[in-house]
Amino acid sequence: MAELGDAGRQAPLRIGVAGLGNVGATLVRILQKDGAELTRKLGRQLEVVAVAARSRSRDRGIDISGLEWFDDPVALAKWDGIDLFIELIGGEDGPALAAVKAALEIGRPVVTANKALLAKHGVALARMAEEAGAQLGFEAAVAGGIPVIKTLREGLGSASIAKVFGIMNGTCNYILTRMGYEDISFADCLKDAQALGYAEADPSFDVEGHDTAHKLSILATLCFGYEIAPDKIRVEGISSISQHDIRVASDLGYKIKLLGIAERTENGIEQRVHPTFVPKGSAIAGVDGVMNAVALETDHVHELLMAGPGAGGPPTASSVLSDILDIARGTKVPPLGVPSAELLPFTEAPSRPHEGGFYIRLAAKDVPGALAAIARRMGDKSISIDSVIQRSDLGGKLMAADGSPIRTVVMITQRTLEASVREALAQIAEDGFIVGEPQLIRIEKL
Amino acid sequence: MAELGDAGRQAPLRIGVAGLGNVGATLVRILQKDGAELTRKLGRQLEVVAVAARSRSRDRGIDISGLEWFDDPVALAKWDGIDLFIELIGGEDGPALAAVKAALEIGRPVVTANKALLAKHGVALARMAEEAGAQLGFEAAVAGGIPVIKTLREGLGSASIAKVFGIMNGTCNYILTRMGYEDISFADCLKDAQALGYAEADPSFDVEGHDTAHKLSILATLCFGYEIAPDKIRVEGISSISQHDIRVASDLGYKIKLLGIAERTENGIEQRVHPTFVPKGSAIAGVDGVMNAVALETDHVHELLMAGPGAGGPPTASSVLSDILDIARGTKVPPLGVPSAELLPFTEAPSRPHEGGFYIRLAAKDVPGALAAIARRMGDKSISIDSVIQRSDLGGKLMAADGSPIRTVVMITQRTLEASVREALAQIAEDGFIVGEPQLIRIEKL
Repeated sequence: MAELGDAGRQAPLRIGVAGLGNVGATLVRILQKDGAELTRKLGRQLEVVAVAARSRSRDRGIDISGLEWFDDPVALAKWDGIDLFIELIGGEDGPALAAVKAALEIGRPVVTANKALLAKHGVALARMAEEAGAQLGFEAAVAGGIPVIKTLREGLGSASIAKVFGIMNGTCNYILTRMGYEDISFADCLKDAQALGYAEADPSFDVEGHDTAHKLSILATLCFGYEIAPDKIRVEGISSISQHDIRVASDLGYKIKLLGIAERTENGIEQRVHPTFVPKGSAIAGVDGVMNAVALETDHVHELLMAGPGAGGPPTASSVLSDILDIARGTKVPPLGVPSAELLPFTEAPSRPHEGGFYIRLAAKDVPGALAAIARRMGDKSISIDSVIQRSDLGGKLMAADGSPIRTVVMITQRTLEASVREALAQIAEDGFIVGEPQLIRIEKL
Repeated sequence: MAELGDAGRQAPLRIGVAGLGNVGATLVRILQKDGAELTRKLGRQLEVVAVAARSRSRDRGIDISGLEWFDDPVALAKWDGIDLFIELIGGEDGPALAAVKAALEIGRPVVTANKALLAKHGVALARMAEEAGAQLGFEAAVAGGIPVIKTLREGLGSASIAKVFGIMNGTCNYILTRMGYEDISFADCLKDAQALGYAEADPSFDVEGHDTAHKLSILATLCFGYEIAPDKIRVEGISSISQHDIRVASDLGYKIKLLGIAERTENGIEQRVHPTFVPKGSAIAGVDGVMNAVALETDHVHELLMAGPGAGGPPTASSVLSDILDIARGTKVPPLGVPSAELLPFTEAPSRPHEGGFYIRLAAKDVPGALAAIARRMGDKSISIDSVIQRSDLGGKLMAADGSPIRTVVMITQRTLEASVREALAQIAEDGFIVGEPQLIRIEKL
């Protein structure tokens, strides 16, 4: 380590960046601006020498005139003028995959922020990296500015992780937070989020929970040492969350958050993404707006929470840079925490009773016997009801097609199987006492 | 990295542990119990081969019969049968210092959990380690189970840190949390904490803020690249916090936490440890009981919060182990983030107005003109008062020595210099309108 005190003696690390969107341009700017300070800290010069993007002429607020230009990211990945390839193109296949593979094939280290790529091809890419003796960094892929990948890969000693959960999508958290403070519908809130740049033109990937699922699958592998299984996740989004749900949650002492949760059980791994009632006093409930958070429950460390910005150019670029620094220092860690050959095949846990119970909201016809019929169907499935809330201010003045008035009925169940609840609700619908789709949200005792 | 897939090919890492208290014994137990799993993850065997402690015969719940025994930790540190020396003895000088130096002198890596040692000798020890090409790990020294050292050293890329603050002493946080939930005095709460093992027989080091100051000085160096300066910290403890303070804080929307705060200013570094009003909705306010938390404000990452267990055998041993794993992997990072030769001399920031204002509690004599006189003294020092609270339920039925009844007066100031407040309070005391010491607590807008 003596050489660390002798800045500049090591050859500079020559970096090629593919993709000059917000994160890419911010990264180039930081490397150009903070170069001297980074060299001082690192004892080695970092130098962006080449870039690849779609448009050469677009103004990105950075000077790329002195850099080698590539139209094709694969050509950049293979170019022998760089020591490290940074993939910030995005997409689970296509040029991003081709370029990352091209770099790893020749033993060149890669840093990527691409969670979709990793969720789909992470195990194969980790194997390629290990075989070629190249590092593969992806700190920025999950929870942008929070160093959660490093913590899971290197920072927890032998702590055996029992559960990982978190708020991993800023768009959803912004919408749910705002719905909690204002009487605004999901649809209007989403429109505002789009106008503010917090949501994509096509928001379904975010609001339906798929982005969270990708990230969760990567975290679960780092936590439990199983192969990445993004398709073995029960995913529900937030588009059905209403002001009713938010208000009742608040009255009961909860906030609604979209959580990704992965848990090690005796019979395999449980992975799920869904809106969740979390107790107002819990640390995760305090993570509002576009912030992200990841929490771990371990044998030795009990609970660890890391909260911070989940996206945005500067935080994400900062995480990319932390990977670059590790590679410049020569740090060697298997990309997925354990060598890919040691990853266990994914075993999906069978469904089991949900400890925290469920919140159920029904639009019930206000006719004699409706509530009794509903309660009976729940009882038939051995579901214990903790409380029933019928609030006049929640029902509005709705009418069913047959002219009967509608009342909003909320039930809180005790510990029970989700399948039982769904079966009971199907029968209640068949009985003809409710209108539309029931809302079903898990309550977590965090 | 190919060798990581080939477990056991590398020679085992032979470990010597000095100090078999709670953390040391837990560490030995984990290494003995989880050895196979660690070898699988790491591709290298970790083996405790020798221990040093005061009493050979004490029952620690671990089997040390097969291990080499040393009465003298220095002899263990020098013994050529180990590759890595773990110091868990404690104390800022004495055998801990001698043993750590002995190991580093011969180029042997060291892991320690000793914050007092690091606060006092950290720069010298880092220099020794760098010169000898040995690693020096101390993840467990600050916020036991939270990987904050690794995050600061390696995880934040170039993010330039503007401020670091946190709850770093579990004893104080337990006491303040419990005083917030129950009508119990500081003294009674401390007694309970001692009975529960959360506080030492001599608690002054914890409750007067010195433990927090040690930890803060280490974090500040990692954040700002200045030499460690544990003596350049304004330290106030929590022993003067009363139920009055806790109740008024709560009424105003705050909790009281003992924070360590270090901030980079234009003219140097500000380091302080003191009870602080923190807004109830803030993430740090939610960190209760024996939990610790460290928060960072950076240019690129905005705010990052890490919360978890601050002490205890298993979390602390887990942090020690994460350092061991890094050393086993060959990770090389300067102990203090930048090479010790690059550390800047510490420059103390001149005092400046405190943005959040102050909470002041006075025991004022209930005589005509007292409040006016107090207000005038504050005005003379250009201190703007935001609000004055005189609550009858807070005053009790106290009397001054001259027979006048006492009223508790609380004032909240706007942004002002602490020195001005202290001068005004000194004059108020001289005027004879108050009894005892005024309470002065900073309000932070986190």
